Amino acid sequence: MAGTDHTREQAEIDGPAIILVEPQLGQNIGMVARAMLNCALSDLRLVRPRDGWPNTQAVAAASGADIVIERARVFESTADAVADLQTVYAATARPRDMTTDVLTPREAAARLRGGARSGLRAGVLFGKESKGLTNDDVSLADAVLMVPLNPAFTSLNLAQAVLTLGYEWFIAEAGAVDAELAVPKETRPANKAELGGLFEHLEDELEAAGFFHVREKKPIMVRNIRNVLQRARFTEQEIRTFRGIVTALSRARRKDGESG
Amino acid sequence: MAGTDHTREQAEIDGPAIILVEPQLGQNIGMVARAMLNCALSDLRLVRPRDGWPNTQAVAAASGADIVIERARVFESTADAVADLQTVYAATARPRDMTTDVLTPREAAARLRGGARSGLRAGVLFGKESKGLTNDDVSLADAVLMVPLNPAFTSLNLAQAVLTLGYEWFIAEAGAVDAELAVPKETRPANKAELGGLFEHLEDELEAAGFFHVREKKPIMVRNIRNVLQRARFTEQEIRTFRGIVTALSRARRKDGESG
Repeated sequence: MAGTDHTREQAEIDGPAIILVEPQLGQNIGMVARAMLNCALSDLRLVRPRDGWPNTQAVAAASGADIVIERARVFESTADAVADLQTVYAATARPRDMTTDVLTPREAAARLRGGARSGLRAGVLFGKESKGLTNDDVSLADAVLMVPLNPAFTSLNLAQAVLTLGYEWFIAEAGAVDAELAVPKETRPANKAELGGLFEHLEDELEAAGFFHVREKKPIMVRNIRNVLQRARFTEQEIRTFRGIVTALSRARRKDGESG
Repeated sequence: MAGTDHTREQAEIDGPAIILVEPQLGQNIGMVARAMLNCALSDLRLVRPRDGWPNTQAVAAASGADIVIERARVFESTADAVADLQTVYAATARPRDMTTDVLTPREAAARLRGGARSGLRAGVLFGKESKGLTNDDVSLADAVLMVPLNPAFTSLNLAQAVLTLGYEWFIAEAGAVDAELAVPKETRPANKAELGGLFEHLEDELEAAGFFHVREKKPIMVRNIRNVLQRARFTEQEIRTFRGIVTALSRARRKDGESG
Protein backbone atom coordinates (compact mmCIF):
# COMPACT_ATOMS: atom_id res chain seq x y z
CA MET A 1 0.00 0.00 0.00
CA ALA A 2 1.14 3.54 -0.69
CA GLY A 3 1.74 5.47 2.49
CA THR A 4 -0.19 8.59 3.31
CA ASP A 5 2.64 11.01 2.57
CA HIS A 6 3.23 9.43 -0.78
CA THR A 7 -0.47 9.69 -1.59
CA ARG A 8 -0.64 13.30 -0.51
CA GLU A 9 2.35 14.23 -2.63
CA GLN A 10 0.74 12.57 -5.61
CA ALA A 11 -2.55 14.36 -5.15
CA GLU A 12 -0.82 17.71 -5.09
CA ILE A 13 0.66 17.42 -8.55
CA ASP A 14 -1.65 18.79 -11.21
CA GLY A 15 -3.17 15.91 -13.09
CA PRO A 16 -4.18 15.92 -16.73
CA ALA A 17 -7.35 17.62 -17.93
CA ILE A 18 -10.07 15.18 -18.94
CA ILE A 19 -11.70 16.38 -22.15
CA LEU A 20 -15.02 14.83 -23.16
CA VAL A 21 -15.80 15.50 -26.82
CA GLU A 22 -19.55 15.68 -27.54
CA PRO A 23 -20.59 13.59 -24.54
CA GLN A 24 -24.18 12.42 -24.88
CA LEU A 25 -25.54 11.46 -21.45
CA GLY A 26 -25.41 13.77 -18.44
CA GLN A 27 -25.24 10.68 -16.26
CA ASN A 28 -21.99 9.65 -17.92
CA ILE A 29 -20.51 13.12 -17.42
CA GLY A 30 -21.38 12.85 -13.73
CA MET A 31 -19.86 9.41 -13.41
CA VAL A 32 -16.70 10.72 -15.11
CA ALA A 33 -16.55 13.57 -12.58
CA ARG A 34 -16.83 11.08 -9.72
CA ALA A 35 -14.13 8.83 -11.20
CA MET A 36 -11.91 11.88 -11.71
CA LEU A 37 -12.18 12.99 -8.09
CA ASN A 38 -11.53 9.40 -6.97
CA CYS A 39 -8.20 9.87 -8.74
CA ALA A 40 -7.62 13.46 -7.55
CA LEU A 41 -8.26 14.89 -11.03
CA SER A 42 -10.36 18.05 -11.23
CA ASP A 43 -9.94 19.72 -14.63
CA LEU A 44 -12.99 18.58 -16.63
CA ARG A 45 -13.56 20.08 -20.09
CA LEU A 46 -16.60 19.49 -22.25
CA VAL A 47 -16.71 20.04 -26.00
CA ARG A 48 -20.28 20.61 -27.24
CA PRO A 49 -22.12 18.42 -24.68
CA ARG A 50 -25.25 17.16 -26.44
CA ASP A 51 -27.74 18.12 -23.73
CA GLY A 52 -26.17 21.45 -22.86
CA TRP A 53 -24.55 22.57 -19.65
CA PRO A 54 -25.13 22.69 -16.70
CA ASN A 55 -26.93 19.35 -16.56
CA THR A 56 -28.86 18.15 -13.50
CA GLN A 57 -28.34 14.47 -14.35
CA ALA A 58 -24.61 15.04 -14.31
CA VAL A 59 -24.82 16.54 -10.84
CA ALA A 60 -26.85 13.59 -9.53
CA ALA A 61 -24.48 10.99 -11.00
CA ALA A 62 -21.40 12.79 -9.66
CA SER A 63 -22.35 11.52 -6.16
CA GLY A 64 -20.62 14.31 -4.33
CA ALA A 65 -17.88 15.17 -6.80
CA ASP A 66 -19.51 18.61 -7.04
CA ILE A 67 -16.25 20.49 -7.26
CA VAL A 68 -15.42 18.83 -10.57
CA ILE A 69 -18.87 19.57 -12.00
CA GLU A 70 -18.80 23.19 -10.83
CA ARG A 71 -15.39 23.84 -12.33
CA ALA A 72 -16.12 22.11 -15.65
CA ARG A 73 -15.62 24.33 -18.68
CA VAL A 74 -17.42 24.12 -22.02
CA PHE A 75 -15.68 24.65 -25.37
CA GLU A 76 -16.93 25.05 -28.91
CA SER A 77 -14.23 22.90 -30.48
CA THR A 78 -11.69 20.28 -29.48
CA ALA A 79 -8.92 22.59 -30.69
CA ASP A 80 -10.13 25.30 -28.29
CA ALA A 81 -10.30 22.80 -25.44
CA VAL A 82 -6.65 21.76 -25.83
CA ALA A 83 -5.22 25.16 -26.82
CA ASP A 84 -3.34 25.70 -23.54
CA LEU A 85 -2.04 22.13 -23.27
CA GLN A 86 1.40 20.90 -24.24
CA THR A 87 0.71 17.17 -24.23
CA VAL A 88 -2.52 15.61 -25.45
CA TYR A 89 -3.45 11.93 -25.66
CA ALA A 90 -6.52 10.59 -27.45
CA ALA A 91 -8.36 7.60 -25.98
CA THR A 92 -9.61 5.25 -28.66
CA ALA A 93 -11.04 1.74 -28.59
CA ARG A 94 -9.49 0.70 -31.90
CA PRO A 95 -6.26 1.43 -33.79
CA ARG A 96 -6.43 4.31 -36.26
CA ASP A 97 -4.91 4.51 -39.67
CA MET A 98 -2.29 6.96 -38.47
CA THR A 99 1.37 6.76 -37.60
CA THR A 100 1.33 7.58 -33.94
CA ASP A 101 2.44 6.16 -30.61
CA VAL A 102 -0.04 3.88 -28.90
CA LEU A 103 0.17 3.95 -25.10
CA THR A 104 -1.44 1.84 -22.41
CA PRO A 105 -2.92 3.71 -19.43
CA ARG A 106 0.14 2.73 -17.41
CA GLU A 107 2.56 4.07 -19.99
CA ALA A 108 0.50 7.22 -20.47
CA ALA A 109 0.30 7.77 -16.71
CA ALA A 110 4.07 7.46 -16.29
CA ARG A 111 4.65 10.00 -19.06
CA LEU A 112 1.99 12.34 -17.72
CA ARG A 113 3.48 12.26 -14.25
CA GLY A 114 6.94 12.88 -15.63
CA GLY A 115 5.60 15.79 -17.65
CA ALA A 116 3.62 17.22 -14.74
CA ARG A 117 6.74 17.25 -12.58
CA SER A 118 8.36 19.41 -15.24
CA GLY A 119 5.36 21.74 -15.34
CA LEU A 120 3.91 20.54 -18.63
CA ARG A 121 0.15 20.88 -18.98
CA ALA A 122 -1.55 17.82 -20.35
CA GLY A 123 -4.96 16.46 -21.22
CA VAL A 124 -6.65 13.31 -22.46
CA LEU A 125 -9.45 13.30 -25.06
CA PHE A 126 -12.39 10.92 -24.75
CA GLY A 127 -14.97 10.68 -27.55
CA LYS A 128 -18.73 10.40 -27.48
CA GLU A 129 -20.24 7.21 -26.07
CA SER A 130 -21.60 5.92 -29.38
CA LYS A 131 -18.71 6.54 -31.74
CA GLY A 132 -15.60 7.67 -29.96
CA LEU A 133 -13.33 10.37 -31.33
CA THR A 134 -13.21 11.50 -34.93
CA ASN A 135 -9.94 11.20 -36.81
CA ASP A 136 -9.72 14.99 -36.74
CA ASP A 137 -9.82 14.93 -32.95
CA VAL A 138 -7.19 12.19 -32.84
CA SER A 139 -4.95 14.22 -35.12
CA LEU A 140 -4.77 16.88 -32.39
CA ALA A 141 -3.10 14.40 -30.06
CA ASP A 142 0.52 13.46 -29.51
CA ALA A 143 -0.29 9.81 -28.96
CA VAL A 144 -3.20 7.41 -28.75
CA LEU A 145 -4.31 5.82 -25.48
CA MET A 146 -5.75 2.32 -25.69
CA VAL A 147 -6.95 0.29 -22.70
CA PRO A 148 -5.73 -3.26 -23.35
CA LEU A 149 -8.79 -5.20 -22.22
CA ASN A 150 -10.80 -8.20 -23.48
CA PRO A 151 -10.60 -8.02 -27.30
CA ALA A 152 -13.90 -9.91 -27.48
CA PHE A 153 -15.75 -7.19 -25.51
CA THR A 154 -14.04 -3.82 -25.69
CA SER A 155 -17.14 -1.67 -25.13
CA LEU A 156 -15.89 0.31 -22.15
CA ASN A 157 -18.19 2.71 -20.34
CA LEU A 158 -16.94 6.31 -20.56
CA ALA A 159 -16.34 6.64 -16.81
CA GLN A 160 -14.56 3.29 -16.79
CA ALA A 161 -12.20 4.44 -19.53
CA VAL A 162 -11.46 7.62 -17.57
CA LEU A 163 -10.94 5.56 -14.40
CA THR A 164 -8.29 3.30 -15.91
CA LEU A 165 -6.23 6.34 -16.85
CA GLY A 166 -6.95 8.19 -13.60
CA TYR A 167 -6.20 5.14 -11.48
CA GLU A 168 -2.86 4.62 -13.19
CA TRP A 169 -2.14 8.33 -12.88
CA PHE A 170 -2.87 8.30 -9.17
CA ILE A 171 -0.73 5.30 -8.33
CA ALA A 172 2.05 6.03 -10.83
CA GLU A 173 5.48 5.91 -9.34
CA ALA A 174 8.30 8.16 -10.45
CA GLY A 175 7.33 8.99 -13.99
CA ALA A 176 9.21 7.69 -16.97
CA VAL A 177 11.33 10.34 -18.58
CA ASP A 178 9.49 11.36 -21.68
CA ALA A 179 11.29 12.38 -24.82
CA GLU A 180 9.26 15.59 -24.64
CA LEU A 181 11.24 16.68 -21.63
CA ALA A 182 14.58 16.86 -23.40
CA VAL A 183 14.06 20.53 -24.22
CA PRO A 184 16.67 23.30 -23.89
CA LYS A 185 16.11 25.63 -20.95
CA GLU A 186 15.66 28.74 -23.07
CA THR A 187 12.50 27.39 -24.64
CA ARG A 188 9.60 25.03 -23.77
CA PRO A 189 7.34 22.55 -25.56
CA ALA A 190 4.83 24.33 -27.77
CA ASN A 191 1.22 24.34 -26.67
CA LYS A 192 -1.58 23.28 -28.97
CA ALA A 193 -2.64 26.86 -29.77
CA GLU A 194 0.86 27.61 -31.05
CA LEU A 195 0.95 24.40 -33.03
CA GLY A 196 -2.53 25.13 -34.40
CA GLY A 197 -1.29 28.58 -35.46
CA LEU A 198 1.47 26.97 -37.49
CA PHE A 199 -0.96 24.51 -39.06
CA GLU A 200 -3.34 27.25 -40.14
CA HIS A 201 -0.56 29.45 -41.42
CA LEU A 202 0.87 26.61 -43.49
CA GLU A 203 -2.52 25.47 -44.77
CA ASP A 204 -3.53 29.00 -45.77
CA GLU A 205 -0.36 29.40 -47.78
CA LEU A 206 -0.76 25.95 -49.33
CA GLU A 207 -4.32 26.89 -50.26
CA ALA A 208 -3.15 30.13 -51.85
CA ALA A 209 -0.52 28.16 -53.76
CA GLY A 210 -3.13 25.82 -55.22
CA PHE A 211 -1.75 22.83 -53.36
CA PHE A 212 -5.27 21.56 -52.58
CA HIS A 213 -6.53 21.63 -56.17
CA VAL A 214 -8.20 18.24 -55.78
CA ARG A 215 -10.83 19.60 -53.41
CA GLU A 216 -12.20 16.33 -52.05
CA LYS A 217 -8.72 15.29 -50.98
CA LYS A 218 -8.05 18.41 -48.94
CA PRO A 219 -9.37 17.09 -45.59
CA ILE A 220 -7.24 13.94 -45.66
CA MET A 221 -4.19 15.86 -46.89
CA VAL A 222 -4.57 18.38 -44.08
CA ARG A 223 -4.92 15.60 -41.53
CA ASN A 224 -1.83 13.82 -42.79
CA ILE A 225 0.25 16.99 -42.69
CA ARG A 226 -0.93 17.78 -39.18
CA ASN A 227 -0.25 14.23 -38.08
CA VAL A 228 3.36 14.39 -39.25
CA LEU A 229 4.01 17.77 -37.65
CA GLN A 230 2.24 16.72 -34.46
CA ARG A 231 4.74 13.91 -34.06
CA ALA A 232 7.66 16.32 -34.35
CA ARG A 233 6.98 17.67 -30.81
CA PHE A 234 7.77 21.29 -31.59
CA THR A 235 9.16 23.70 -29.05
CA GLU A 236 7.71 27.18 -28.94
CA GLN A 237 10.94 28.46 -30.53
CA GLU A 238 10.71 25.97 -33.37
CA ILE A 239 7.13 27.02 -34.04
CA ARG A 240 8.37 30.57 -34.62
CA THR A 241 11.18 29.27 -36.80
CA PHE A 242 8.78 27.25 -38.94
CA ARG A 243 6.30 30.08 -39.27
CA GLY A 244 9.22 32.13 -40.52
CA ILE A 245 10.01 29.39 -43.03
CA VAL A 246 6.42 29.31 -44.30
CA THR A 247 6.38 33.07 -44.61
CA ALA A 248 9.71 33.10 -46.43
CA LEU A 249 8.69 30.37 -48.87
CA SER A 250 5.38 32.05 -49.58
CA ARG A 251 7.04 35.38 -50.21
CA ALA A 252 9.35 33.75 -52.75
CA ARG A 253 6.39 32.07 -54.45
CA ARG A 254 4.48 35.33 -54.58
CA LYS A 255 7.50 37.12 -56.01
CA ASP A 256 7.77 34.40 -58.65
CA GLY A 257 4.08 34.88 -59.35
CA GLU A 258 4.56 38.63 -59.77
CA SER A 259 7.57 38.28 -61.99
CA GLY A 260 6.19 35.26 -63.92
CA MET B 1 0.91 -2.92 -25.67
CA ALA B 2 0.25 -6.56 -24.97
CA GLY B 3 0.31 -8.66 -28.12
CA THR B 4 -2.72 -10.63 -29.25
CA ASP B 5 -1.34 -14.02 -28.26
CA HIS B 6 -0.49 -12.77 -24.82
CA THR B 7 -3.98 -11.34 -24.45
CA ARG B 8 -5.62 -14.54 -25.63
CA GLU B 9 -3.59 -16.63 -23.22
CA GLN B 10 -4.65 -14.35 -20.39
CA ALA B 11 -8.31 -14.53 -21.26
CA GLU B 12 -8.25 -18.32 -21.21
CA ILE B 13 -7.17 -18.59 -17.59
CA ASP B 14 -10.13 -18.72 -15.24
CA GLY B 15 -10.42 -15.42 -13.48
CA PRO B 16 -11.72 -14.88 -9.97
CA ALA B 17 -15.42 -14.98 -9.17
CA ILE B 18 -16.89 -11.57 -8.41
CA ILE B 19 -19.23 -11.87 -5.44
CA LEU B 20 -21.61 -8.98 -4.74
CA VAL B 21 -23.00 -9.13 -1.21
CA GLU B 22 -26.50 -7.61 -0.94
CA PRO B 23 -26.18 -5.37 -4.00
CA GLN B 24 -28.92 -2.74 -4.01
CA LEU B 25 -29.34 -1.38 -7.54
CA GLY B 26 -29.89 -3.58 -10.59
CA GLN B 27 -28.14 -0.95 -12.65
CA ASN B 28 -24.99 -1.39 -10.60
CA ILE B 29 -25.12 -5.18 -11.02
CA GLY B 30 -25.37 -4.66 -14.79
CA MET B 31 -22.45 -2.24 -14.85
CA VAL B 32 -20.43 -4.74 -12.84
CA ALA B 33 -21.26 -7.44 -15.41
CA ARG B 34 -20.09 -5.16 -18.22
CA ALA B 35 -16.86 -4.30 -16.40
CA MET B 36 -16.29 -7.98 -15.72
CA LEU B 37 -16.62 -8.96 -19.37
CA ASN B 38 -14.33 -6.07 -20.33
CA CYS B 39 -11.77 -7.88 -18.20
CA ALA B 40 -12.71 -11.40 -19.41
CA LEU B 41 -14.27 -12.32 -16.08
CA SER B 42 -17.55 -14.21 -16.17
CA ASP B 43 -18.29 -15.81 -12.79
CA LEU B 44 -20.73 -13.41 -11.11
CA ARG B 45 -22.28 -14.41 -7.78
CA LEU B 46 -24.97 -12.48 -5.94
CA VAL B 47 -25.73 -12.82 -2.24
CA ARG B 48 -29.31 -11.73 -1.43
CA PRO B 49 -29.68 -9.03 -4.12
CA ARG B 50 -32.13 -6.48 -2.69
CA ASP B 51 -34.47 -6.32 -5.69
CA GLY B 52 -34.44 -10.04 -6.48
CA TRP B 53 -33.12 -11.83 -9.51
CA PRO B 54 -33.37 -11.75 -12.51
CA ASN B 55 -33.49 -7.97 -12.76
CA THR B 56 -34.34 -6.12 -15.98
CA GLN B 57 -32.35 -3.03 -14.99
CA ALA B 58 -29.26 -5.17 -14.62
CA VAL B 59 -29.74 -6.53 -18.14
CA ALA B 60 -30.09 -3.03 -19.59
CA ALA B 61 -27.00 -1.69 -17.80
CA ALA B 62 -24.90 -4.69 -18.84
CA SER B 63 -24.80 -3.23 -22.38
CA GLY B 64 -24.29 -6.56 -24.08
CA ALA B 65 -22.50 -8.46 -21.35
CA ASP B 66 -25.49 -10.82 -21.37
CA ILE B 67 -23.45 -13.94 -20.83
CA VAL B 68 -22.33 -12.71 -17.42
CA ILE B 69 -25.89 -11.83 -16.39
CA GLU B 70 -27.28 -15.15 -17.64
CA ARG B 71 -24.70 -17.20 -15.78
CA ALA B 72 -24.95 -15.23 -12.53
CA ARG B 73 -25.82 -17.35 -9.51
CA VAL B 74 -27.71 -16.28 -6.39
CA PHE B 75 -26.76 -17.43 -2.88
CA GLU B 76 -28.44 -17.16 0.49
CA SER B 77 -25.26 -16.37 2.41
CA THR B 78 -21.74 -15.16 1.77
CA ALA B 79 -20.41 -18.41 3.22
CA ASP B 80 -22.42 -20.39 0.64
CA ALA B 81 -21.15 -18.16 -2.17
CA VAL B 82 -17.50 -18.80 -1.34
CA ALA B 83 -17.81 -22.44 -0.26
CA ASP B 84 -16.02 -23.86 -3.35
CA LEU B 85 -13.26 -21.23 -3.39
CA GLN B 86 -9.76 -21.60 -2.01
CA THR B 87 -8.74 -17.96 -2.01
CA VAL B 88 -11.07 -15.10 -1.12
CA TYR B 89 -10.31 -11.39 -0.92
CA ALA B 90 -12.65 -8.78 0.54
CA ALA B 91 -12.81 -5.31 -1.04
CA THR B 92 -13.18 -2.58 1.55
CA ALA B 93 -12.90 1.18 1.41
CA ARG B 94 -11.44 1.51 4.89
CA PRO B 95 -9.08 -0.49 7.09
CA ARG B 96 -10.78 -2.93 9.47
CA ASP B 97 -9.85 -3.67 13.01
CA MET B 98 -8.46 -7.07 12.05
CA THR B 99 -5.03 -8.50 11.60
CA THR B 100 -5.01 -9.35 7.93
CA ASP B 101 -3.04 -8.68 4.78
CA VAL B 102 -4.08 -5.56 2.86
CA LEU B 103 -3.51 -5.82 -0.88
CA THR B 104 -3.72 -3.28 -3.67
CA PRO B 105 -5.54 -4.39 -6.84
CA ARG B 106 -2.16 -4.93 -8.49
CA GLU B 107 -0.87 -7.12 -5.70
CA ALA B 108 -4.14 -9.02 -5.52
CA ALA B 109 -4.14 -9.54 -9.30
CA ALA B 110 -0.62 -10.93 -9.29
CA ARG B 111 -1.50 -13.37 -6.55
CA LEU B 112 -4.76 -14.34 -8.21
CA ARG B 113 -3.03 -15.03 -11.50
CA GLY B 114 -0.35 -17.07 -9.78
CA GLY B 115 -3.03 -19.04 -7.99
CA ALA B 116 -5.13 -19.53 -11.13
CA ARG B 117 -2.12 -20.98 -12.96
CA SER B 118 -1.92 -23.55 -10.19
CA GLY B 119 -5.61 -24.35 -10.47
CA LEU B 120 -6.76 -22.54 -7.32
CA ARG B 121 -10.30 -21.19 -7.39
CA ALA B 122 -10.62 -17.65 -6.14
CA GLY B 123 -13.16 -14.90 -5.60
CA VAL B 124 -13.41 -11.29 -4.49
CA LEU B 125 -16.18 -10.00 -2.22
CA PHE B 126 -17.72 -6.56 -2.78
CA GLY B 127 -20.24 -5.14 -0.29
CA LYS B 128 -23.47 -3.23 -0.76
CA GLU B 129 -23.24 0.25 -2.26
CA SER B 130 -24.28 2.09 0.90
CA LYS B 131 -22.24 0.34 3.56
CA GLY B 132 -19.73 -2.10 2.10
CA LEU B 133 -19.05 -5.49 3.65
CA THR B 134 -19.83 -6.46 7.23
CA ASN B 135 -16.98 -7.56 9.46
CA ASP B 136 -18.45 -11.07 9.35
CA ASP B 137 -18.10 -11.08 5.55
CA VAL B 138 -14.54 -9.78 5.79
CA SER B 139 -13.70 -12.52 8.26
CA LEU B 140 -14.38 -15.08 5.51
CA ALA B 141 -11.55 -13.64 3.42
CA ASP B 142 -7.84 -14.40 3.30
CA ALA B 143 -6.91 -10.78 2.75
CA VAL B 144 -8.43 -7.35 2.29
CA LEU B 145 -8.37 -5.51 -1.04
CA MET B 146 -8.13 -1.72 -0.91
CA VAL B 147 -7.98 0.54 -3.96
CA PRO B 148 -5.42 3.20 -3.09
CA LEU B 149 -7.16 6.27 -4.51
CA ASN B 150 -7.79 9.86 -3.39
CA PRO B 151 -8.11 9.70 0.42
CA ALA B 152 -10.24 12.85 0.28
CA PHE B 153 -12.86 11.17 -1.96
CA THR B 154 -12.84 7.42 -1.67
CA SER B 155 -16.49 6.83 -2.62
CA LEU B 156 -15.89 4.42 -5.49
CA ASN B 157 -18.82 3.23 -7.60
CA LEU B 158 -19.30 -0.55 -7.33
CA ALA B 159 -18.49 -1.20 -10.99
CA GLN B 160 -15.44 1.03 -10.73
CA ALA B 161 -14.14 -0.98 -7.79
CA VAL B 162 -14.66 -4.20 -9.73
CA LEU B 163 -12.94 -2.67 -12.76
CA THR B 164 -9.76 -1.76 -10.93
CA LEU B 165 -9.36 -5.37 -9.84
CA GLY B 166 -10.45 -6.80 -13.20
CA TYR B 167 -8.21 -4.45 -15.15
CA GLU B 168 -5.20 -5.40 -13.06
CA TRP B 169 -6.15 -9.05 -13.39
CA PHE B 170 -6.38 -8.81 -17.15
CA ILE B 171 -3.07 -7.07 -17.68
CA ALA B 172 -1.18 -8.88 -14.92
CA GLU B 173 2.10 -10.31 -16.06
CA ALA B 174 3.49 -13.57 -14.74
CA GLY B 175 1.87 -13.81 -11.32
CA ALA B 176 3.82 -13.39 -8.15
CA VAL B 177 4.39 -16.65 -6.37
CA ASP B 178 1.96 -16.68 -3.52
CA ALA B 179 2.76 -18.33 -0.24
CA GLU B 180 -0.44 -20.31 -0.73
CA LEU B 181 1.20 -22.24 -3.53
CA ALA B 182 3.88 -23.86 -1.43
CA VAL B 183 1.71 -26.88 -0.74
CA PRO B 184 2.83 -30.54 -0.84
CA LYS B 185 1.59 -32.47 -3.86
CA GLU B 186 -0.39 -34.99 -1.84
CA THR B 187 -2.78 -32.31 -0.59
CA ARG B 188 -4.22 -28.96 -1.71
CA PRO B 189 -5.33 -25.68 -0.12
CA ALA B 190 -8.60 -26.11 1.75
CA ASN B 191 -11.70 -24.54 0.28
CA LYS B 192 -13.97 -22.32 2.30
CA ALA B 193 -16.56 -25.02 2.91
CA GLU B 194 -13.90 -27.19 4.54
CA LEU B 195 -12.62 -24.28 6.59
CA GLY B 196 -16.19 -23.38 7.56
CA GLY B 197 -16.71 -26.96 8.69
CA LEU B 198 -13.74 -26.69 11.01
CA PHE B 199 -15.00 -23.34 12.36
CA GLU B 200 -18.42 -24.73 13.15
CA HIS B 201 -17.03 -27.89 14.69
CA LEU B 202 -14.72 -25.90 16.94
CA GLU B 203 -17.37 -23.35 17.88
CA ASP B 204 -19.92 -26.06 18.71
CA GLU B 205 -17.47 -27.71 21.03
CA LEU B 206 -16.46 -24.40 22.59
CA GLU B 207 -20.14 -23.63 23.12
CA ALA B 208 -20.68 -27.00 24.78
CA ALA B 209 -17.66 -26.33 26.97
CA GLY B 210 -19.11 -23.03 28.19
CA PHE B 211 -16.35 -21.01 26.53
CA PHE B 212 -18.86 -18.36 25.41
CA HIS B 213 -20.37 -17.76 28.83
CA VAL B 214 -20.34 -13.97 28.34
CA ARG B 215 -23.05 -14.12 25.68
CA GLU B 216 -22.69 -10.62 24.24
CA LYS B 217 -19.02 -11.26 23.55
CA LYS B 218 -19.60 -14.44 21.56
CA PRO B 219 -19.85 -12.79 18.10
CA ILE B 220 -16.58 -10.89 18.44
CA MET B 221 -14.84 -13.90 19.95
CA VAL B 222 -16.00 -16.11 17.09
CA ARG B 223 -14.84 -13.54 14.56
CA ASN B 224 -11.42 -13.26 16.18
CA ILE B 225 -10.95 -17.03 16.26
CA ARG B 226 -12.00 -17.33 12.61
CA ASN B 227 -9.72 -14.48 11.65
CA VAL B 228 -6.69 -16.18 13.20
CA LEU B 229 -7.43 -19.55 11.63
CA GLN B 230 -8.22 -17.92 8.28
CA ARG B 231 -4.72 -16.52 8.19
CA ALA B 232 -3.20 -19.96 8.74
CA ARG B 233 -4.02 -20.98 5.13
CA PHE B 234 -5.00 -24.55 5.92
CA THR B 235 -4.57 -27.40 3.50
CA GLU B 236 -7.38 -29.92 3.19
CA GLN B 237 -5.23 -32.41 5.08
CA GLU B 238 -4.62 -29.97 7.93
CA ILE B 239 -8.35 -29.34 8.22
CA ARG B 240 -8.86 -33.04 8.85
CA THR B 241 -6.01 -33.05 11.36
CA PHE B 242 -7.48 -30.10 13.24
CA ARG B 243 -10.97 -31.54 13.27
CA GLY B 244 -9.38 -34.61 14.79
CA ILE B 245 -7.74 -32.42 17.41
CA VAL B 246 -11.02 -30.74 18.29
CA THR B 247 -12.75 -34.09 18.57
CA ALA B 248 -9.96 -35.50 20.71
CA LEU B 249 -9.92 -32.51 23.06
CA SER B 250 -13.67 -32.55 23.43
CA ARG B 251 -13.72 -36.22 24.17
CA ALA B 252 -11.18 -35.68 26.97
CA ARG B 253 -13.24 -32.80 28.36
CA ARG B 254 -16.41 -34.90 28.29
CA LYS B 255 -14.67 -37.74 30.00
CA ASP B 256 -13.49 -35.30 32.69
CA GLY B 257 -17.03 -34.04 32.97
CA GLU B 258 -18.33 -37.56 33.42
CA SER B 259 -15.74 -38.49 35.96
CA GLY B 260 -15.79 -35.10 37.73
